[in-house]
Amino acid sequence: MKRNIMMIIEYSGTNFFGWQKQTGKRTVQGELEEKISKMLNASCKVEGCGRTDRGVHAKNYVATVVIERNIPLTNFKNALNKLLSDDVVVKKVKEVPLDFHPRFSAKRKTYEYIVDVSKTRSAINHNLVTHWTEQVDMERMVKAGQILVGEHNFKAFCSSHTNVTDFNRTIYEISVKKVGKFIKFEITGNGFLYNMVRIIVGTLLQIDKVKEENIVKALKSGDRSLLGKTMPPNGLYLKKVEYV
Amino acid sequence: MKRNIMMIIEYSGTNFFGWQKQTGKRTVQGELEEKISKMLNASCKVEGCGRTDRGVHAKNYVATVVIERNIPLTNFKNALNKLLSDDVVVKKVKEVPLDFHPRFSAKRKTYEYIVDVSKTRSAINHNLVTHWTEQVDMERMVKAGQILVGEHNFKAFCSSHTNVTDFNRTIYEISVKKVGKFIKFEITGNGFLYNMVRIIVGTLLQIDKVKEENIVKALKSGDRSLLGKTMPPNGLYLKKVEYV
Repeated sequence: MKRNIMMIIEYSGTNFFGWQKQTGKRTVQGELEEKISKMLNASCKVEGCGRTDRGVHAKNYVATVVIERNIPLTNFKNALNKLLSDDVVVKKVKEVPLDFHPRFSAKRKTYEYIVDVSKTRSAINHNLVTHWTEQVDMERMVKAGQILVGEHNFKAFCSSHTNVTDFNRTIYEISVKKVGKFIKFEITGNGFLYNMVRIIVGTLLQIDKVKEENIVKALKSGDRSLLGKTMPPNGLYLKKVEYV
Repeated sequence: MKRNIMMIIEYSGTNFFGWQKQTGKRTVQGELEEKISKMLNASCKVEGCGRTDRGVHAKNYVATVVIERNIPLTNFKNALNKLLSDDVVVKKVKEVPLDFHPRFSAKRKTYEYIVDVSKTRSAINHNLVTHWTEQVDMERMVKAGQILVGEHNFKAFCSSHTNVTDFNRTIYEISVKKVGKFIKFEITGNGFLYNMVRIIVGTLLQIDKVKEENIVKALKSGDRSLLGKTMPPNGLYLKKVEYV
């Protein structure tokens, strides 16, 4: 009997070429399919909740795999975790209906971006946070973030390397908080365009230069050049995917 | 005029073959000598406060380099940090007397070891902490640690791969603390033998199996087999070196 197994996965993106399977490259999807196939001695296809780029991390990535074995879920999880490398781990497993798809069924996604504003960059955390030395204005960032909340055409917040034609997305929430020597951005939306989170964070960090009126203009015109820089992938985490 | 420049350095040990220079291998000492030589256009020799193994991190490693240039210290530091890779950074520089040696002048060293006792290992932090699933007894660990404080022959706490003949060392302080899902060990001594911290931590974590009386016996007999396992290098940090 076919069973659809949902996996909540944590991975460090540093040594992966992103989520999506690519011939000859180490990817999270590729690694999962390889190890699950090996474990069950049957080929399998792992579906994911979306692409993540090279270097981007995930705290709770959602993926599914359809299996035909009667293996208890705890054994499935423990055996798989023994086969997986140190930089990827299955945190939870759960059986879900066969028509559940981690991407098409997703209602909300939350990304986190961590910026280190210490004077000197950290060597130990260099893969996990992005160092930022330009002056930042917390209050202005918090306010400017609110311009983006709601449904908008986010074409300006999208890298040109995309096949997407519908740029309308809804952002439910943006929070910007100072936690010790870090600034943590958390953005929840119904979906995100390519590099959208990284451009939002770069734009808020550079708000003194970008100015609020240009965010408004960019949402209308789709003009990428009005906004701030695209932040690097380290520092970016897929934090949560919600389905109801 | 010759100037002895002290550098306080942070590095992630993950992608280094330890501190000490080795032909054809990436080491912290090798990388520093290469970049400083390049920057000053003159060969140089970097002295360190001791070896660290492959995979061991440092928060405040102390090194020195003798230079003959009149470059301001801030420029030295900033220019060097631009040349260094992301996983090593100079946090502070200071001019010290020519006879100061980071290893021979050191009085106390403090190491930290971080153990993750979560049920599921962390993929994102896999290089920075060591996952531990065996049962631990905090109170018993704290007490057993005190057996080691003072001057002892630590031969039993030393890996056999060593040229050392004097195994006497003084431990000034051992602390074991639970911080969230982590156990943090901090050990201060006048010097450490090869793998000494990693064997102390393994012995305390396995104290239920090892038993206190065997620690006492091991200090007398030098018998390594009475003690716990040697912990892996990830999780270990050189935290501080003191000179007065």
